[in-house]
Amino acid sequence: MPQEEMKKPLILGGASPRHLEASVSDPGTPLLGILGTGDFSRSLAKRLLASGYRVVVGSRNPKRCASLFPEEAEVTTQQEAATQADLVFVAMFPEHYSTLAGLRELLAGKTLVDVSNGIKINKDRQSYAEQLANIFPDSNVVKGFNVISAWSLQMGPRDGSRQVLICGDSSRAKSAVIQICRSLGFIPVDMGHLSSAQEIENAPLYLFPSWRSPCLSTLGLFVFFYAYNFIREVLHPYVKSGKSVFYKMPVEVVNVTLPSVALVTLALVYLPGLNAALLQLSWGTKYRRFPHWLDRWLQLRKQLGLCAFFCAALHAVYSLCLPMRRSARYKLLNLAFKQVKAGQEEVWVEEEVWRMELYLSVGILALGTLSLLAVSSLPTVGNSLNWREFSFVQSRLGYTALVMATLHTLTYGWNRGFDPEQYRFFLPPTFLLVLALPLAVLLGRLALCLPCVAHQLHRIRRGWEKSRAIRFTLPDDECNGRLQEDISNV
Amino acid sequence: MPQEEMKKPLILGGASPRHLEASVSDPGTPLLGILGTGDFSRSLAKRLLASGYRVVVGSRNPKRCASLFPEEAEVTTQQEAATQADLVFVAMFPEHYSTLAGLRELLAGKTLVDVSNGIKINKDRQSYAEQLANIFPDSNVVKGFNVISAWSLQMGPRDGSRQVLICGDSSRAKSAVIQICRSLGFIPVDMGHLSSAQEIENAPLYLFPSWRSPCLSTLGLFVFFYAYNFIREVLHPYVKSGKSVFYKMPVEVVNVTLPSVALVTLALVYLPGLNAALLQLSWGTKYRRFPHWLDRWLQLRKQLGLCAFFCAALHAVYSLCLPMRRSARYKLLNLAFKQVKAGQEEVWVEEEVWRMELYLSVGILALGTLSLLAVSSLPTVGNSLNWREFSFVQSRLGYTALVMATLHTLTYGWNRGFDPEQYRFFLPPTFLLVLALPLAVLLGRLALCLPCVAHQLHRIRRGWEKSRAIRFTLPDDECNGRLQEDISNV
Amino acid sequence: MPQEEMKKPLILGGASPRHLEASVSDPGTPLLGILGTGDFSRSLAKRLLASGYRVVVGSRNPKRCASLFPEEAEVTTQQEAATQADLVFVAMFPEHYSTLAGLRELLAGKTLVDVSNGIKINKDRQSYAEQLANIFPDSNVVKGFNVISAWSLQMGPRDGSRQVLICGDSSRAKSAVIQICRSLGFIPVDMGHLSSAQEIENAPLYLFPSWRSPCLSTLGLFVFFYAYNFIREVLHPYVKSGKSVFYKMPVEVVNVTLPSVALVTLALVYLPGLNAALLQLSWGTKYRRFPHWLDRWLQLRKQLGLCAFFCAALHAVYSLCLPMRRSARYKLLNLAFKQVKAGQEEVWVEEEVWRMELYLSVGILALGTLSLLAVSSLPTVGNSLNWREFSFVQSRLGYTALVMATLHTLTYGWNRGFDPEQYRFFLPPTFLLVLALPLAVLLGRLALCLPCVAHQLHRIRRGWEKSRAIRFTLPDDECNGRLQEDISNV
Repeated sequence: MPQEEMKKPLILGGASPRHLEASVSDPGTPLLGILGTGDFSRSLAKRLLASGYRVVVGSRNPKRCASLFPEEAEVTTQQEAATQADLVFVAMFPEHYSTLAGLRELLAGKTLVDVSNGIKINKDRQSYAEQLANIFPDSNVVKGFNVISAWSLQMGPRDGSRQVLICGDSSRAKSAVIQICRSLGFIPVDMGHLSSAQEIENAPLYLFPSWRSPCLSTLGLFVFFYAYNFIREVLHPYVKSGKSVFYKMPVEVVNVTLPSVALVTLALVYLPGLNAALLQLSWGTKYRRFPHWLDRWLQLRKQLGLCAFFCAALHAVYSLCLPMRRSARYKLLNLAFKQVKAGQEEVWVEEEVWRMELYLSVGILALGTLSLLAVSSLPTVGNSLNWREFSFVQSRLGYTALVMATLHTLTYGWNRGFDPEQYRFFLPPTFLLVLALPLAVLLGRLALCLPCVAHQLHRIRRGWEKSRAIRFTLPDDECNGRLQEDISNV
Repeated sequence: MPQEEMKKPLILGGASPRHLEASVSDPGTPLLGILGTGDFSRSLAKRLLASGYRVVVGSRNPKRCASLFPEEAEVTTQQEAATQADLVFVAMFPEHYSTLAGLRELLAGKTLVDVSNGIKINKDRQSYAEQLANIFPDSNVVKGFNVISAWSLQMGPRDGSRQVLICGDSSRAKSAVIQICRSLGFIPVDMGHLSSAQEIENAPLYLFPSWRSPCLSTLGLFVFFYAYNFIREVLHPYVKSGKSVFYKMPVEVVNVTLPSVALVTLALVYLPGLNAALLQLSWGTKYRRFPHWLDRWLQLRKQLGLCAFFCAALHAVYSLCLPMRRSARYKLLNLAFKQVKAGQEEVWVEEEVWRMELYLSVGILALGTLSLLAVSSLPTVGNSLNWREFSFVQSRLGYTALVMATLHTLTYGWNRGFDPEQYRFFLPPTFLLVLALPLAVLLGRLALCLPCVAHQLHRIRRGWEKSRAIRFTLPDDECNGRLQEDISNV
Repeated sequence: MPQEEMKKPLILGGASPRHLEASVSDPGTPLLGILGTGDFSRSLAKRLLASGYRVVVGSRNPKRCASLFPEEAEVTTQQEAATQADLVFVAMFPEHYSTLAGLRELLAGKTLVDVSNGIKINKDRQSYAEQLANIFPDSNVVKGFNVISAWSLQMGPRDGSRQVLICGDSSRAKSAVIQICRSLGFIPVDMGHLSSAQEIENAPLYLFPSWRSPCLSTLGLFVFFYAYNFIREVLHPYVKSGKSVFYKMPVEVVNVTLPSVALVTLALVYLPGLNAALLQLSWGTKYRRFPHWLDRWLQLRKQLGLCAFFCAALHAVYSLCLPMRRSARYKLLNLAFKQVKAGQEEVWVEEEVWRMELYLSVGILALGTLSLLAVSSLPTVGNSLNWREFSFVQSRLGYTALVMATLHTLTYGWNRGFDPEQYRFFLPPTFLLVLALPLAVLLGRLALCLPCVAHQLHRIRRGWEKSRAIRFTLPDDECNGRLQEDISNV
């Protein structure tokens, strides 16, 4: 499902030659140059024209390429373009930068914008922008626009990330590029000297860096719990009584594994906040940096939470599929047969009925609460909340979901933890393993709610420090007007 | 799931000391001051530096705090910072404002930006910004940036609400702050004089103000219908025949209650639009203000609709869980037993089969339509629609969902309304109660579609007025080029 | 569910008279005029005041209308407003433009902004902006702001599409309007001469232009497969054995039809990318334009994908409803009866059990993958991805979903394709029909992964051309620094 298509025919029309002639005829609008005639060059030209700039494109083969550009763009030789424009975008493959060396004098004192991107992450090589700067020592090279795709350039900034990272050694040149960037509807971010170009070039090449650990931890938990359940549910009956229930592998075992993963992962969302609070309490200050691992963990809570939600949602779908299966039907029919043979007119185990009604009910509510949390994780929904609302959703609603999910598991487990039959191969039932972490988190959170602890924590978060409090009581002017609740709240 | 994490390592890098030295060395860029060294101060400094400003931070303890800031920020004494900068952000707890009194002369004629936030909603006390203005009578105090969290400052405006409310008595000072606000990528909103500061300070403290009534009304309906169904489904068999079916409380009674709440709430979404149209018809003009309650109700339609959707979705999940329960299994087994005893080879009630297939089918379609509506309520999805599309989704699709949900209830009810057995304790079946409002809304909507009524309404919405039409026929220049369809359409 | 309500009471307050007096008293801020006093006029006035402009409103009846506007706006006669302001918004119904002719001299040399909208798409008539320009030959008419609703004007740009299309013959006048547009927080797009006004006026009137073909194709497939399944599942038993199973029409037949539509539509998402790659390979260049139909198809992939997801999700809900139905219960009871009569203690068909467990499992995973794709299609989620992430999601995840969905269908079909009984009326089972297209797409995609083909394609996408390669090997400066992966990737 390719992202954001050209929906309004009219906006598409913006690229058609008829529009924008005004800009061309008007000598007052600034003239920008583009070297290169590829996709990015074409999209950039259209976008610049639509924002009211005049554009001259330099090509090795102007006649052949002119038809690819809107009519208002002047397509000419590289020399001519370099002569006319004071600011030139270099939109060519970096491997051909050297062919531009002949323009060195024409471009002296002018601003060159390097928009190139690498194919793989570069940690050693010089950045393309610096290579360009080596070829043009008398020009001001600015790196930028590489994080924007040709597509989002053409469709306007609503169709792509709006932040454009910019760096360069000349602040005058950088200001000009920042200005253009803003006119095009993007948000420029100054990243400093040209030496940052490598980082900027690597930016679009990272593949979900913040999702790696959460996904790996979810996967690891899945593998562990799947193996554990496989041993208990499938291997045990096979070994002990030769009963082959391998058919349980695709659905039933997965369905017992998923909620375990979901609940542990959900507990992992609230554990780091708890740790942070405990550290602040023991340090007696909020001005010490958390250890690196904790900082990183705090930043991954959203991803962990979404992983937990994904597992919980899959668990719901798997569970709902259970009664639909052939195996369930066969079992039911065989039970009916048995009941008839035994002449039992009425089977009804009140306790079992209650257990199931209860854990179903709590489970559905837990899933509903998690859904609300997931929806509020969508950027625009989260953005429309003020920080008190946001903190309410993430903290109150999040803990509600954790409590419900824990209750769901407890009622599911019922009294099976005390049934020796459940300890197959001496392995305790899965739900006992699963409950350890969430219960610990919930108890820890309760402890933080004790008035004395809560008060101390509040003081610390308002900037109070144990060390200073002992020495001297100074007005605490080193603090800001608001708690950074959303980073370290528990 | 904390909102928007630091995903791209590179952007994070923006905070690392190496970048941005350019800005520092360049004397042309404007210099801004910050008093205070808390979280907000640090985030603000980073953001200002990334947007190309130079920053000087005033601290009581510059040596100790310097390490907390990026290297490009100059961390110095409060006096020094106040001397150097013409525009100073005051990022301290308001209770320590008085300690700044010594800077009064250094800051005379300069602009002070108060970014402080309260802890609870303040209706009586003077705002912090006005308190600051009392301490610095010769400075121009501007209130602003308090609605932005330290977190979203640091991560760029895509991670937080982009609107920044600003007020102040000096329009020159206000313009400067508005300009900075825009450079940082936020959208400034001028709220007028400094006397608005109280409102601006309260803004981030409201907790879902627009959700209160919709949630309360949903909750109220839930309690009412739950009690009603409890009496009919659980109490009645217990009282009449001593049959204990209390196990129905967590799932079955909830599952009959949820769709009732959903349907009535959905009808409540379309009732105010209908009322508005009727009022306009009876007044013969659109230039009279609706009564306050109607105005407010019109504004809560989105929330009501989402509450209805939430209940409907929960109802779907609960329903899908029904056949999975132990109680359902036991009942089925007992039925099988009975059938065998009775020797009935084939049970099949064609009417019951049709009833269920029909109401399931219509119910699923109603939920599907509601899902589309819910998705289009997401800010970005809604924003990508033009007003004709928006009005189509909200009006046509919305009424389609209402019609389907009503049909779902009608087919579910079937002929039970005529069955005296259903009137337990003389209470009519729930679905009869539920249907009253949606049927009324649908009939009202149909009435508005009658050609004569529709024409009259259209004229009124284009600016025609009954009173003027009688007196005189003037060209209607008092109107605009578009109906405000999205406010009062039915 | 009306879009984005007035959530924060404070922001609403922006419209209250008390604020903004500062702007009025300050003579330095620019003064803008508005002719007309309808909804749009009022919202525009409020928004302009909130952005720091002074506003004068011209009305035929200033006394009557003054109360409708915030106090800071001056409401006066049309003559007076036209005299005072240099830039005037004309916010009246176009049919009354002629009544303004008397202001011609007062408005000479000034800028008029036409904000009017049509009621239906206009292909023949002159645009309203050009009609206005005819009435005021000496004024500079600029078209703009019509795509913005009164509502989103009032609530700020976060509540509406942010792009404002602007055109006009005077670039000086256009610059002024572009400037105002930016101050109001919108993104201006220069559409060129006033002759583009017709297109701009039509823009808000299109009704989901990009959804028409995808929805029609989905609907067409639905009708076809429904009819096909109806003949096989309902008509065949009726004709052959007189068995009436018409009750299957609302749920069962729909439930067999939906996955067929979903899978074929999903294959249609990946077919055009495959075609594009094949065309590029056979042409040996990426510089030839794709035929129009292919271009269009490539742009509709997102919509097709969402249609496929919607059908798949409905299929999931329908399937989960199956065991809940009366018909399912009756069948089960009758089966139990038969089993008891036949004295079969244990029914269990291992192959049937495995078939169902497998296809359920694969189906759930396919739906899970499709859900991730659908979520990443939400504008803000997609925007927060860099292009490598985006391409990963759309290409890898998309093909994973296609593979899973195909496997789901294959395991569902199992060996039924070889069972002559399944060829009712000589019609092959539905799943065989359905599988043709996805299997073809998957094989085609596999072919593109062969090293020789993949290498050739990569070269072509980096700008290499077969024709030039044969003649001469020139440095390829005609290319850009990045593949337009998101447009033509497969």
